[in-house]
Amino acid sequence: MTTNFDKNTLVAFLGPRGTFSEIAVRQHFGDVIEISACKTIDEVFASVESQRCHYGVVPVENSTEGAVNNTQDCLIDSQLHITGEQVVVIDHCLLAQPGVELSEMQTIASHQQSLAQCRKWLSANLPAVKLVECTSNAEAARIAQADKHTAAIAGALAADIYGLNILARKIQDQPHNSTRFLILGNTATSRTGNDKTSILIYTENRPGALFRILEPFENLGVSLTRIETRPSKKEAWAYVFFIDFEGHVEDKIVKELFSRLQACTAEIKVLGSYPRAK
Amino acid sequence: MTTNFDKNTLVAFLGPRGTFSEIAVRQHFGDVIEISACKTIDEVFASVESQRCHYGVVPVENSTEGAVNNTQDCLIDSQLHITGEQVVVIDHCLLAQPGVELSEMQTIASHQQSLAQCRKWLSANLPAVKLVECTSNAEAARIAQADKHTAAIAGALAADIYGLNILARKIQDQPHNSTRFLILGNTATSRTGNDKTSILIYTENRPGALFRILEPFENLGVSLTRIETRPSKKEAWAYVFFIDFEGHVEDKIVKELFSRLQACTAEIKVLGSYPRAK
Repeated sequence: MTTNFDKNTLVAFLGPRGTFSEIAVRQHFGDVIEISACKTIDEVFASVESQRCHYGVVPVENSTEGAVNNTQDCLIDSQLHITGEQVVVIDHCLLAQPGVELSEMQTIASHQQSLAQCRKWLSANLPAVKLVECTSNAEAARIAQADKHTAAIAGALAADIYGLNILARKIQDQPHNSTRFLILGNTATSRTGNDKTSILIYTENRPGALFRILEPFENLGVSLTRIETRPSKKEAWAYVFFIDFEGHVEDKIVKELFSRLQACTAEIKVLGSYPRAK
Repeated sequence: MTTNFDKNTLVAFLGPRGTFSEIAVRQHFGDVIEISACKTIDEVFASVESQRCHYGVVPVENSTEGAVNNTQDCLIDSQLHITGEQVVVIDHCLLAQPGVELSEMQTIASHQQSLAQCRKWLSANLPAVKLVECTSNAEAARIAQADKHTAAIAGALAADIYGLNILARKIQDQPHNSTRFLILGNTATSRTGNDKTSILIYTENRPGALFRILEPFENLGVSLTRIETRPSKKEAWAYVFFIDFEGHVEDKIVKELFSRLQACTAEIKVLGSYPRAK
Protein backbone atom coordinates (compact mmCIF):
# COMPACT_ATOMS: atom_id res chain seq x y z
CA MET A 1 0.00 0.00 0.00
CA THR A 2 1.26 3.45 -0.95
CA THR A 3 0.92 6.24 1.59
CA ASN A 4 0.20 10.00 1.27
CA PHE A 5 -3.39 9.63 0.17
CA ASP A 6 -6.30 11.09 2.11
CA LYS A 7 -10.05 11.55 1.97
CA ASN A 8 -9.63 14.24 -0.69
CA THR A 9 -8.03 11.71 -3.08
CA LEU A 10 -10.56 10.51 -5.66
CA VAL A 11 -9.79 7.19 -7.40
CA ALA A 12 -11.62 5.94 -10.52
CA PHE A 13 -11.89 2.18 -11.12
CA LEU A 14 -13.83 -0.30 -13.23
CA GLY A 15 -17.12 -0.70 -11.39
CA PRO A 16 -19.67 -1.54 -10.32
CA ARG A 17 -18.83 -1.98 -6.63
CA GLY A 18 -17.41 -5.34 -5.62
CA THR A 19 -15.13 -6.12 -8.58
CA PHE A 20 -11.52 -7.20 -8.24
CA SER A 21 -10.64 -3.68 -9.41
CA GLU A 22 -12.15 -2.33 -6.19
CA ILE A 23 -10.05 -4.83 -4.23
CA ALA A 24 -6.96 -3.50 -6.08
CA VAL A 25 -7.95 0.08 -5.15
CA ARG A 26 -8.32 -0.85 -1.46
CA GLN A 27 -5.02 -2.73 -1.40
CA HIS A 28 -3.13 0.09 -3.10
CA PHE A 29 -4.64 3.20 -1.53
CA GLY A 30 -6.15 1.91 1.73
CA ASP A 31 -9.61 2.82 2.94
CA VAL A 32 -9.29 6.55 3.51
CA ILE A 33 -9.69 7.67 -0.11
CA GLU A 34 -12.93 8.32 -2.05
CA ILE A 35 -13.80 6.01 -4.95
CA SER A 36 -15.61 6.54 -8.25
CA ALA A 37 -16.97 3.45 -10.04
CA CYS A 38 -16.79 3.74 -13.86
CA LYS A 39 -18.75 1.72 -16.41
CA THR A 40 -15.86 0.98 -18.76
CA ILE A 41 -12.06 0.97 -18.86
CA ASP A 42 -12.26 3.88 -21.34
CA GLU A 43 -14.22 5.87 -18.74
CA VAL A 44 -11.52 5.25 -16.09
CA PHE A 45 -8.95 6.74 -18.47
CA ALA A 46 -11.25 9.69 -19.31
CA SER A 47 -11.93 10.44 -15.61
CA VAL A 48 -8.22 10.87 -14.91
CA GLU A 49 -7.44 12.64 -18.19
CA SER A 50 -10.13 15.26 -17.40
CA GLN A 51 -8.67 15.54 -13.87
CA ARG A 52 -12.09 14.77 -12.37
CA CYS A 53 -10.28 11.95 -10.52
CA HIS A 54 -6.71 11.97 -9.20
CA TYR A 55 -5.95 8.35 -10.06
CA GLY A 56 -7.38 5.48 -12.07
CA VAL A 57 -7.02 1.74 -11.52
CA VAL A 58 -7.34 -0.67 -14.47
CA PRO A 59 -6.52 -4.38 -14.94
CA VAL A 60 -3.71 -4.96 -17.45
CA GLU A 61 -2.76 -8.63 -17.24
CA ASN A 62 -3.97 -11.86 -15.66
CA SER A 63 -1.52 -14.65 -14.85
CA THR A 64 -3.77 -17.25 -16.54
CA GLU A 65 -5.66 -15.36 -19.25
CA GLY A 66 -3.00 -12.89 -20.34
CA ALA A 67 -3.33 -9.27 -21.37
CA VAL A 68 -6.46 -7.16 -20.99
CA ASN A 69 -6.69 -5.90 -24.57
CA ASN A 70 -8.93 -2.91 -23.91
CA THR A 71 -6.50 -1.47 -21.34
CA GLN A 72 -3.60 -1.94 -23.75
CA ASP A 73 -5.53 -0.20 -26.52
CA CYS A 74 -6.39 2.74 -24.22
CA LEU A 75 -2.68 3.06 -23.26
CA ILE A 76 -1.79 3.45 -26.95
CA ASP A 77 -3.97 6.57 -27.22
CA SER A 78 -3.67 8.07 -23.71
CA GLN A 79 -1.19 10.66 -22.39
CA LEU A 80 -1.57 9.48 -18.76
CA HIS A 81 1.38 8.17 -16.74
CA ILE A 82 1.47 4.74 -15.17
CA THR A 83 2.31 5.73 -11.59
CA GLY A 84 2.18 2.31 -9.91
CA GLU A 85 1.06 -1.31 -10.08
CA GLN A 86 -0.87 -3.63 -7.77
CA VAL A 87 -1.06 -7.42 -8.01
CA VAL A 88 -4.28 -8.97 -6.63
CA VAL A 89 -4.80 -12.70 -6.04
CA ILE A 90 -8.01 -13.67 -7.87
CA ASP A 91 -10.03 -16.32 -6.06
CA HIS A 92 -13.26 -16.87 -7.94
CA CYS A 93 -16.38 -17.87 -6.02
CA LEU A 94 -19.77 -19.06 -7.24
CA LEU A 95 -22.41 -16.79 -5.71
CA ALA A 96 -26.18 -17.26 -5.57
CA GLN A 97 -29.25 -16.21 -3.58
CA PRO A 98 -29.24 -17.54 0.00
CA GLY A 99 -31.03 -20.88 0.36
CA VAL A 100 -30.60 -21.94 -3.28
CA GLU A 101 -28.46 -24.98 -4.10
CA LEU A 102 -25.90 -25.65 -6.83
CA SER A 103 -28.17 -28.20 -8.53
CA GLU A 104 -30.85 -25.52 -9.07
CA MET A 105 -28.60 -23.34 -11.23
CA GLN A 106 -29.58 -22.94 -14.89
CA THR A 107 -27.39 -19.99 -15.84
CA ILE A 108 -23.90 -18.84 -14.83
CA ALA A 109 -23.15 -15.17 -15.36
CA SER A 110 -19.75 -13.51 -15.29
CA HIS A 111 -17.20 -11.48 -17.21
CA GLN A 112 -15.89 -13.36 -20.23
CA GLN A 113 -12.40 -13.60 -18.72
CA SER A 114 -13.74 -15.08 -15.45
CA LEU A 115 -15.84 -17.62 -17.35
CA ALA A 116 -12.67 -18.56 -19.26
CA GLN A 117 -10.69 -18.90 -16.02
CA CYS A 118 -13.25 -21.36 -14.61
CA ARG A 119 -13.88 -23.27 -17.87
CA LYS A 120 -12.79 -26.70 -16.60
CA TRP A 121 -14.57 -26.41 -13.24
CA LEU A 122 -17.80 -25.42 -15.04
CA SER A 123 -17.53 -28.30 -17.56
CA ALA A 124 -16.97 -30.79 -14.72
CA ASN A 125 -19.54 -29.49 -12.24
CA LEU A 126 -22.23 -27.72 -14.27
CA PRO A 127 -21.97 -29.11 -17.82
CA ALA A 128 -25.56 -28.25 -18.80
CA VAL A 129 -25.82 -24.63 -17.65
CA LYS A 130 -26.04 -21.65 -19.96
CA LEU A 131 -23.10 -19.23 -19.74
CA VAL A 132 -23.88 -15.52 -19.96
CA GLU A 133 -21.11 -12.98 -20.52
CA CYS A 134 -21.49 -9.74 -18.52
CA THR A 135 -19.54 -6.51 -18.59
CA SER A 136 -18.23 -7.22 -15.05
CA ASN A 137 -18.36 -9.81 -12.29
CA ALA A 138 -20.33 -7.38 -10.15
CA GLU A 139 -22.97 -6.98 -12.86
CA ALA A 140 -23.19 -10.79 -12.80
CA ALA A 141 -23.70 -10.62 -9.01
CA ARG A 142 -26.57 -8.19 -9.54
CA ILE A 143 -28.19 -10.58 -12.02
CA ALA A 144 -27.81 -13.43 -9.50
CA GLN A 145 -29.37 -11.21 -6.83
CA ALA A 146 -32.49 -10.87 -9.02
CA ASP A 147 -32.77 -14.45 -10.32
CA LYS A 148 -32.56 -17.52 -8.13
CA HIS A 149 -31.60 -19.81 -11.02
CA THR A 150 -28.57 -17.69 -11.95
CA ALA A 151 -25.25 -17.94 -10.14
CA ALA A 152 -22.45 -15.41 -10.59
CA ILE A 153 -18.72 -15.97 -10.69
CA ALA A 154 -17.13 -13.16 -8.70
CA GLY A 155 -14.90 -12.43 -5.73
CA ALA A 156 -15.99 -12.89 -2.10
CA LEU A 157 -16.30 -9.08 -1.73
CA ALA A 158 -19.26 -9.16 -4.17
CA ALA A 159 -21.09 -11.65 -1.90
CA ASP A 160 -20.92 -9.08 0.94
CA ILE A 161 -22.01 -6.16 -1.23
CA TYR A 162 -24.88 -7.94 -3.02
CA GLY A 163 -26.10 -10.15 -0.14
CA LEU A 164 -25.30 -13.44 -1.88
CA ASN A 165 -24.33 -16.84 -0.57
CA ILE A 166 -21.00 -18.48 -1.54
CA LEU A 167 -21.80 -21.88 -3.13
CA ALA A 168 -18.18 -22.73 -4.01
CA ARG A 169 -14.78 -21.08 -3.51
CA LYS A 170 -11.57 -21.08 -5.58
CA ILE A 171 -13.27 -22.51 -8.66
CA GLN A 172 -10.65 -21.15 -11.10
CA ASP A 173 -8.79 -23.80 -13.13
CA GLN A 174 -5.35 -22.52 -12.15
CA PRO A 175 -4.78 -22.43 -8.38
CA HIS A 176 -2.39 -19.48 -8.65
CA ASN A 177 -4.42 -16.82 -10.38
CA SER A 178 -3.52 -13.15 -10.02
CA THR A 179 -4.29 -9.97 -11.90
CA ARG A 180 -1.90 -7.06 -12.28
CA PHE A 181 -3.53 -3.63 -12.12
CA LEU A 182 -2.02 -0.34 -13.24
CA ILE A 183 -2.39 2.91 -11.32
CA LEU A 184 -2.83 5.84 -13.74
CA GLY A 185 -2.18 9.49 -12.94
CA ASN A 186 -1.33 12.86 -14.45
CA THR A 187 2.21 13.22 -13.09
CA ALA A 188 5.30 11.03 -13.37
CA THR A 189 6.56 9.08 -10.34
CA SER A 190 10.06 9.74 -8.97
CA ARG A 191 12.81 7.15 -8.82
CA THR A 192 12.78 4.81 -5.79
CA GLY A 193 15.68 2.53 -6.80
CA ASN A 194 13.39 -0.49 -7.26
CA ASP A 195 11.39 0.56 -10.30
CA LYS A 196 9.87 -0.79 -13.46
CA THR A 197 9.26 1.08 -16.72
CA SER A 198 6.53 0.40 -19.31
CA ILE A 199 7.01 1.53 -22.90
CA LEU A 200 5.45 0.80 -26.24
CA ILE A 201 7.37 0.57 -29.49
CA TYR A 202 6.16 0.89 -33.04
CA THR A 203 8.56 -0.73 -35.49
CA GLU A 204 8.84 -0.95 -39.20
CA ASN A 205 6.92 -4.03 -40.32
CA ARG A 206 9.86 -6.07 -41.60
CA PRO A 207 11.82 -9.20 -40.65
CA GLY A 208 14.23 -8.89 -37.73
CA ALA A 209 12.56 -5.75 -36.28
CA LEU A 210 11.86 -7.39 -32.93
CA PHE A 211 15.36 -8.84 -32.74
CA ARG A 212 16.85 -5.37 -33.23
CA ILE A 213 14.62 -3.99 -30.45
CA LEU A 214 15.78 -6.66 -28.00
CA GLU A 215 19.48 -6.34 -28.84
CA PRO A 216 20.07 -3.11 -26.81
CA PHE A 217 18.33 -4.65 -23.76
CA GLU A 218 20.58 -7.71 -23.99
CA ASN A 219 23.78 -5.73 -24.58
CA LEU A 220 23.10 -3.29 -21.72
CA GLY A 221 21.89 -6.03 -19.35
CA VAL A 222 18.46 -4.43 -18.86
CA SER A 223 15.94 -7.11 -17.78
CA LEU A 224 12.68 -7.37 -19.70
CA THR A 225 9.86 -8.47 -17.43
CA ARG A 226 7.17 -8.67 -20.08
CA ILE A 227 6.60 -8.31 -23.83
CA GLU A 228 3.23 -8.27 -25.57
CA THR A 229 2.22 -7.64 -29.16
CA ARG A 230 -0.96 -5.83 -30.19
CA PRO A 231 -2.21 -4.86 -33.64
CA SER A 232 -0.95 -1.32 -34.29
CA LYS A 233 -4.36 -0.16 -35.60
CA LYS A 234 -2.44 2.03 -38.06
CA GLU A 235 -2.33 -0.69 -40.75
CA ALA A 236 -3.60 -4.28 -40.97
CA TRP A 237 -1.20 -6.98 -39.66
CA ALA A 238 1.33 -4.42 -38.27
CA TYR A 239 2.09 -4.64 -34.55
CA VAL A 240 3.05 -2.52 -31.58
CA PHE A 241 5.14 -4.07 -28.79
CA PHE A 242 4.35 -3.44 -25.10
CA ILE A 243 7.54 -3.87 -23.09
CA ASP A 244 8.09 -3.73 -19.32
CA PHE A 245 11.64 -3.68 -17.98
CA GLU A 246 13.50 -3.13 -14.71
CA GLY A 247 14.70 0.46 -14.20
CA HIS A 248 13.50 4.06 -14.17
CA VAL A 249 13.56 6.61 -17.02
CA GLU A 250 15.91 8.74 -14.86
CA ASP A 251 18.51 5.91 -14.69
CA LYS A 252 21.60 6.57 -16.81
CA ILE A 253 21.44 3.09 -18.34
CA VAL A 254 17.80 3.59 -19.37
CA LYS A 255 18.70 6.85 -21.12
CA GLU A 256 21.40 4.96 -23.02
CA LEU A 257 18.86 2.20 -23.83
CA PHE A 258 16.43 4.74 -25.27
CA SER A 259 19.07 6.35 -27.45
CA ARG A 260 20.00 2.94 -28.89
CA LEU A 261 16.32 2.00 -29.41
CA GLN A 262 15.64 5.29 -31.17
CA ALA A 263 18.43 4.49 -33.60
CA CYS A 264 16.69 1.28 -34.74
CA THR A 265 12.93 1.78 -34.37
CA ALA A 266 10.22 4.04 -35.64
CA GLU A 267 8.75 5.34 -32.38
CA ILE A 268 8.97 4.83 -28.59
CA LYS A 269 6.26 5.97 -26.19
CA VAL A 270 7.07 5.94 -22.45
CA LEU A 271 3.98 4.91 -20.48
CA GLY A 272 5.62 5.43 -17.08
CA SER A 273 8.22 4.46 -14.48
CA TYR A 274 6.87 3.27 -11.12
CA PRO A 275 7.83 1.26 -8.03
CA ARG A 276 7.68 -2.52 -8.54
CA ALA A 277 4.88 -4.32 -6.69
CA LYS A 278 6.07 -6.50 -3.83
CA MET B 1 -9.42 -22.41 -52.06
CA THR B 2 -7.77 -25.80 -51.66
CA THR B 3 -8.85 -28.66 -53.91
CA ASN B 4 -9.22 -32.44 -53.36
CA PHE B 5 -12.19 -32.19 -51.04
CA ASP B 6 -15.56 -33.77 -51.78
CA LYS B 7 -18.97 -34.38 -50.28
CA ASN B 8 -17.49 -37.02 -47.96
CA THR B 9 -15.25 -34.41 -46.33
CA LEU B 10 -16.70 -33.27 -42.97
CA VAL B 11 -15.47 -29.92 -41.63
CA ALA B 12 -16.10 -28.70 -38.06
CA PHE B 13 -16.28 -24.95 -37.37
CA LEU B 14 -17.41 -22.53 -34.69
CA GLY B 15 -21.16 -22.29 -35.20
CA PRO B 16 -23.94 -21.56 -35.25
CA ARG B 17 -24.54 -21.12 -39.01
CA GLY B 18 -23.71 -17.73 -40.44
CA THR B 19 -20.54 -16.83 -38.51
CA PHE B 20 -17.37 -15.60 -40.16
CA SER B 21 -15.97 -19.08 -39.40
CA GLU B 22 -18.51 -20.53 -41.85
CA ILE B 23 -17.37 -17.97 -44.43
CA ALA B 24 -13.78 -19.14 -43.85
CA VAL B 25 -14.87 -22.77 -44.36
CA ARG B 26 -16.61 -21.90 -47.66
CA GLN B 27 -13.64 -19.90 -48.92
CA HIS B 28 -11.14 -22.62 -48.05
CA PHE B 29 -12.99 -25.80 -48.96
CA GLY B 30 -15.63 -24.61 -51.44
CA ASP B 31 -19.26 -25.65 -51.29
CA VAL B 32 -19.02 -29.39 -51.97
CA ILE B 33 -18.05 -30.47 -48.45
CA GLU B 34 -20.30 -31.23 -45.47
CA ILE B 35 -20.15 -28.93 -42.44
CA SER B 36 -20.61 -29.50 -38.70
CA ALA B 37 -21.34 -26.44 -36.53
CA CYS B 38 -19.77 -26.68 -33.04
CA LYS B 39 -20.74 -24.70 -29.94
CA THR B 40 -17.21 -23.83 -28.80
CA ILE B 41 -13.65 -23.67 -30.10
CA ASP B 42 -12.80 -26.55 -27.74
CA GLU B 43 -15.50 -28.64 -29.44
CA VAL B 44 -13.99 -27.95 -32.90
CA PHE B 45 -10.66 -29.31 -31.64
CA ALA B 46 -12.37 -32.33 -30.02
CA SER B 47 -14.33 -33.16 -33.21
CA VAL B 48 -11.11 -33.44 -35.23
CA GLU B 49 -9.11 -35.15 -32.47
CA SER B 50 -11.79 -37.88 -32.22
CA GLN B 51 -11.73 -38.13 -36.06
CA ARG B 52 -15.48 -37.52 -36.18
CA CYS B 53 -14.60 -34.66 -38.55
CA HIS B 54 -11.76 -34.55 -41.10
CA TYR B 55 -10.89 -30.88 -40.56
CA GLY B 56 -11.60 -28.05 -38.14
CA VAL B 57 -11.61 -24.30 -38.79
CA VAL B 58 -10.93 -21.87 -35.93
CA PRO B 59 -10.16 -18.12 -35.76
CA VAL B 60 -6.66 -17.41 -34.46
CA GLU B 61 -6.02 -13.71 -34.98
CA ASN B 62 -7.83 -10.55 -35.99
CA SER B 63 -5.98 -7.68 -37.62
CA THR B 64 -7.54 -5.14 -35.22
CA GLU B 65 -8.25 -7.07 -32.01
CA GLY B 66 -5.26 -9.41 -31.96
CA ALA B 67 -5.05 -13.03 -30.91
CA VAL B 68 -8.01 -15.29 -30.14
CA ASN B 69 -6.88 -16.51 -26.73
CA ASN B 70 -9.06 -19.60 -26.54
CA THR B 71 -7.68 -20.97 -29.81
CA GLN B 72 -4.13 -20.35 -28.65
CA ASP B 73 -4.82 -22.14 -25.36
CA CYS B 74 -6.34 -25.13 -27.22
CA LEU B 75 -3.24 -25.31 -29.46
CA ILE B 76 -1.04 -25.63 -26.36
CA ASP B 77 -2.84 -28.83 -25.32
CA SER B 78 -3.79 -30.35 -28.70
CA GLN B 79 -1.87 -32.86 -30.84
CA LEU B 80 -3.59 -31.73 -34.08
CA HIS B 81 -1.64 -30.34 -37.02
CA ILE B 82 -2.28 -26.92 -38.50
CA THR B 83 -2.75 -27.91 -42.15
CA GLY B 84 -3.64 -24.53 -43.65
CA GLU B 85 -4.76 -20.95 -43.08
CA GLN B 86 -7.49 -18.75 -44.50
CA VAL B 87 -7.74 -14.95 -44.21
CA VAL B 88 -11.30 -13.56 -44.31
CA VAL B 89 -12.16 -9.86 -44.66
CA ILE B 90 -14.51 -9.01 -41.78
CA ASP B 91 -17.17 -6.47 -42.71
CA HIS B 92 -19.52 -6.02 -39.79
CA CYS B 93 -23.16 -5.17 -40.44
CA LEU B 94 -25.91 -4.08 -38.08
CA LEU B 95 -28.83 -6.49 -38.52
CA ALA B 96 -32.41 -6.16 -37.28
CA GLN B 97 -35.94 -7.37 -38.01
CA PRO B 98 -37.28 -6.11 -41.34
CA GLY B 99 -39.21 -2.84 -41.03
CA VAL B 100 -37.54 -1.70 -37.80
CA GLU B 101 -35.38 1.43 -37.84
CA LEU B 102 -32.03 2.25 -36.24
CA SER B 103 -33.63 4.74 -33.81
CA GLU B 104 -35.81 1.96 -32.34
CA MET B 105 -32.84 -0.09 -31.14
CA GLN B 106 -32.41 -0.46 -27.37
CA THR B 107 -29.90 -3.32 -27.30
CA ILE B 108 -26.98 -4.35 -29.49
CA ALA B 109 -25.95 -7.98 -29.28
CA SER B 110 -22.73 -9.51 -30.59
CA HIS B 111 -19.58 -11.41 -29.73
CA GLN B 112 -17.33 -9.44 -27.38
CA GLN B 113 -14.67 -9.09 -30.08
CA SER B 114 -17.15 -7.73 -32.63
CA LEU B 115 -18.52 -5.22 -30.10
CA ALA B 116 -14.91 -4.14 -29.48
CA GLN B 117 -14.27 -3.78 -33.21
CA CYS B 118 -17.27 -1.45 -33.59
CA ARG B 119 -16.74 0.50 -30.34
CA LYS B 120 -16.35 3.94 -31.93
CA TRP B 121 -19.21 3.53 -34.38
CA LEU B 122 -21.53 2.44 -31.55
CA SER B 123 -20.48 5.39 -29.31
CA ALA B 124 -21.08 7.84 -32.14
CA ASN B 125 -24.33 6.42 -33.52
CA LEU B 126 -26.02 4.58 -30.65
CA PRO B 127 -24.54 6.03 -27.44
CA ALA B 128 -27.49 5.06 -25.21
CA VAL B 129 -27.99 1.41 -26.19
CA LYS B 130 -27.21 -1.54 -23.95
CA LEU B 131 -24.46 -3.86 -25.22
CA VAL B 132 -24.96 -7.59 -24.74
CA GLU B 133 -22.07 -10.01 -25.22
CA CYS B 134 -23.01 -13.29 -26.94
CA THR B 135 -21.04 -16.45 -27.59
CA SER B 136 -21.14 -15.76 -31.36
CA ASN B 137 -22.38 -13.22 -33.89
CA ALA B 138 -24.89 -15.74 -35.15
CA GLU B 139 -26.35 -16.20 -31.66
CA ALA B 140 -26.72 -12.42 -31.64
CA ALA B 141 -28.56 -12.66 -34.97
CA ARG B 142 -30.96 -15.20 -33.45
CA ILE B 143 -31.65 -12.82 -30.54
CA ALA B 144 -32.33 -10.00 -33.03
CA GLN B 145 -34.66 -12.33 -34.94
CA ALA B 146 -36.74 -12.75 -31.76
CA ASP B 147 -36.68 -9.15 -30.44
CA LYS B 148 -37.43 -6.13 -32.59
CA HIS B 149 -35.56 -3.74 -30.24
CA THR B 150 -32.31 -5.73 -30.48
CA ALA B 151 -29.90 -5.38 -33.38
CA ALA B 152 -27.04 -7.80 -33.98
CA ILE B 153 -23.55 -7.08 -35.24
CA ALA B 154 -22.69 -9.87 -37.69
CA GLY B 155 -21.66 -10.56 -41.26
CA ALA B 156 -23.99 -10.19 -44.22
CA LEU B 157 -24.28 -14.02 -44.46
CA ALA B 158 -26.14 -14.01 -41.11
CA ALA B 159 -28.78 -11.63 -42.57
CA ASP B 160 -29.55 -14.23 -45.25
CA ILE B 161 -29.66 -17.17 -42.84
CA TYR B 162 -31.73 -15.48 -40.12
CA GLY B 163 -34.00 -13.37 -42.34
CA LEU B 164 -32.77 -10.02 -41.05
CA ASN B 165 -32.48 -6.60 -42.61
CA ILE B 166 -29.12 -4.81 -42.93
CA LEU B 167 -29.43 -1.41 -41.17
CA ALA B 168 -25.78 -0.43 -41.67
CA ARG B 169 -22.72 -1.92 -43.37
CA LYS B 170 -18.97 -1.78 -42.60
CA ILE B 171 -19.49 -0.37 -39.12
CA GLN B 172 -16.11 -1.58 -37.80
CA ASP B 173 -13.75 1.15 -36.58
CA GLN B 174 -10.84 0.00 -38.75
CA PRO B 175 -11.70 -0.12 -42.46
CA HIS B 176 -9.24 -2.97 -43.08
CA ASN B 177 -10.39 -5.67 -40.72
CA SER B 178 -9.54 -9.31 -41.42
CA THR B 179 -9.42 -12.50 -39.40
CA ARG B 180 -6.94 -15.29 -39.93
CA PHE B 181 -8.38 -18.79 -39.52
CA LEU B 182 -6.42 -22.00 -39.02
CA ILE B 183 -7.33 -25.29 -40.67
CA LEU B 184 -6.75 -28.20 -38.27
CA GLY B 185 -6.27 -31.84 -39.26
CA ASN B 186 -4.78 -35.15 -38.18
CA THR B 187 -1.99 -35.35 -40.75
CA ALA B 188 0.89 -33.07 -41.60
CA THR B 189 0.87 -31.10 -44.88
CA SER B 190 3.65 -31.64 -47.43
CA ARG B 191 6.04 -28.94 -48.56
CA THR B 192 4.80 -26.65 -51.37
CA GLY B 193 7.77 -24.24 -51.48
CA ASN B 194 5.69 -21.30 -50.19
CA ASP B 195 4.99 -22.41 -46.65
CA LYS B 196 4.68 -21.07 -43.16
CA THR B 197 5.38 -22.92 -39.89
CA SER B 198 3.78 -22.33 -36.50
CA ILE B 199 5.56 -23.38 -33.32
CA LEU B 200 5.31 -22.68 -29.64
CA ILE B 201 8.27 -22.34 -27.34
CA TYR B 202 8.47 -22.68 -23.58
CA THR B 203 11.53 -20.94 -22.19
CA GLU B 204 13.14 -20.69 -18.83
CA ASN B 205 11.64 -17.67 -17.07
CA ARG B 206 14.78 -15.52 -16.96
CA PRO B 207 16.11 -12.31 -18.54
CA GLY B 208 17.27 -12.56 -22.12
CA ALA B 209 15.34 -15.76 -22.88
CA LEU B 210 13.37 -14.20 -25.74
CA PHE B 211 16.49 -12.59 -27.19
CA ARG B 212 18.23 -15.99 -27.30
CA ILE B 213 15.18 -17.48 -29.08
CA LEU B 214 15.25 -14.80 -31.77
CA GLU B 215 19.00 -14.97 -32.34
CA PRO B 216 18.95 -18.18 -34.46
CA PHE B 217 16.14 -16.75 -36.65
CA GLU B 218 18.19 -13.60 -37.25
CA ASN B 219 21.47 -15.45 -37.88
CA LEU B 220 19.88 -17.94 -40.30
CA GLY B 221 17.79 -15.28 -42.07
CA VAL B 222 14.48 -17.01 -41.26
CA SER B 223 11.64 -14.45 -41.33
CA LEU B 224 9.31 -14.31 -38.35
CA THR B 225 5.80 -13.36 -39.44
CA ARG B 226 4.27 -13.22 -35.96
CA ILE B 227 5.12 -13.57 -32.29
CA GLU B 228 2.62 -13.72 -29.42
CA THR B 229 3.01 -14.36 -25.71
CA ARG B 230 0.51 -16.29 -23.60
CA PRO B 231 0.66 -17.29 -19.93
CA SER B 232 2.23 -20.76 -19.82
CA LYS B 233 -0.41 -22.07 -17.36
CA LYS B 234 2.36 -24.14 -15.80
CA GLU B 235 3.33 -21.40 -13.34
CA ALA B 236 2.08 -17.88 -12.64
CA TRP B 237 3.73 -15.09 -14.71
CA ALA B 238 5.67 -17.54 -16.93
CA TYR B 239 4.99 -17.31 -20.67
CA VAL B 240 4.88 -19.41 -23.80
CA PHE B 241 5.74 -17.81 -27.15
CA PHE B 242 3.70 -18.51 -30.29
CA ILE B 243 5.91 -17.97 -33.32
CA ASP B 244 5.06 -18.13 -37.05
CA PHE B 245 7.87 -18.06 -39.59
CA GLU B 246 8.42 -18.58 -43.33
CA GLY B 247 9.49 -22.11 -44.23
CA HIS B 248 8.54 -25.78 -43.83
CA VAL B 249 9.74 -28.28 -41.23
CA GLU B 250 11.22 -30.35 -44.09
CA ASP B 251 13.43 -27.42 -45.19
CA LYS B 252 17.12 -27.92 -44.37
CA ILE B 253 17.37 -24.43 -42.88
CA VAL B 254 14.40 -25.05 -40.58
CA LYS B 255 16.02 -28.26 -39.31
CA GLU B 256 19.13 -26.24 -38.51
CA LEU B 257 16.97 -23.58 -36.82
CA PHE B 258 15.34 -26.19 -34.58
CA SER B 259 18.66 -27.67 -33.53
CA ARG B 260 19.90 -24.19 -32.52
CA LEU B 261 16.64 -23.41 -30.69
CA GLN B 262 16.78 -26.70 -28.81
CA ALA B 263 20.25 -25.79 -27.56
CA CYS B 264 18.91 -22.63 -25.84
CA THR B 265 15.30 -23.30 -24.82
CA ALA B 266 13.33 -25.67 -22.67
CA GLU B 267 10.82 -27.03 -25.17
CA ILE B 268 9.60 -26.55 -28.77
CA LYS B 269 6.26 -27.81 -30.02
CA VAL B 270 5.65 -27.80 -33.79
CA LEU B 271 2.01 -26.92 -34.50
CA GLY B 272 2.31 -27.42 -38.25
CA SER B 273 3.74 -26.36 -41.61
CA TYR B 274 1.23 -25.28 -44.23
CA PRO B 275 0.90 -23.27 -47.47
CA ARG B 276 0.78 -19.50 -46.93
CA ALA B 277 -2.57 -17.84 -47.61
CA LYS B 278 -2.58 -15.65 -50.70
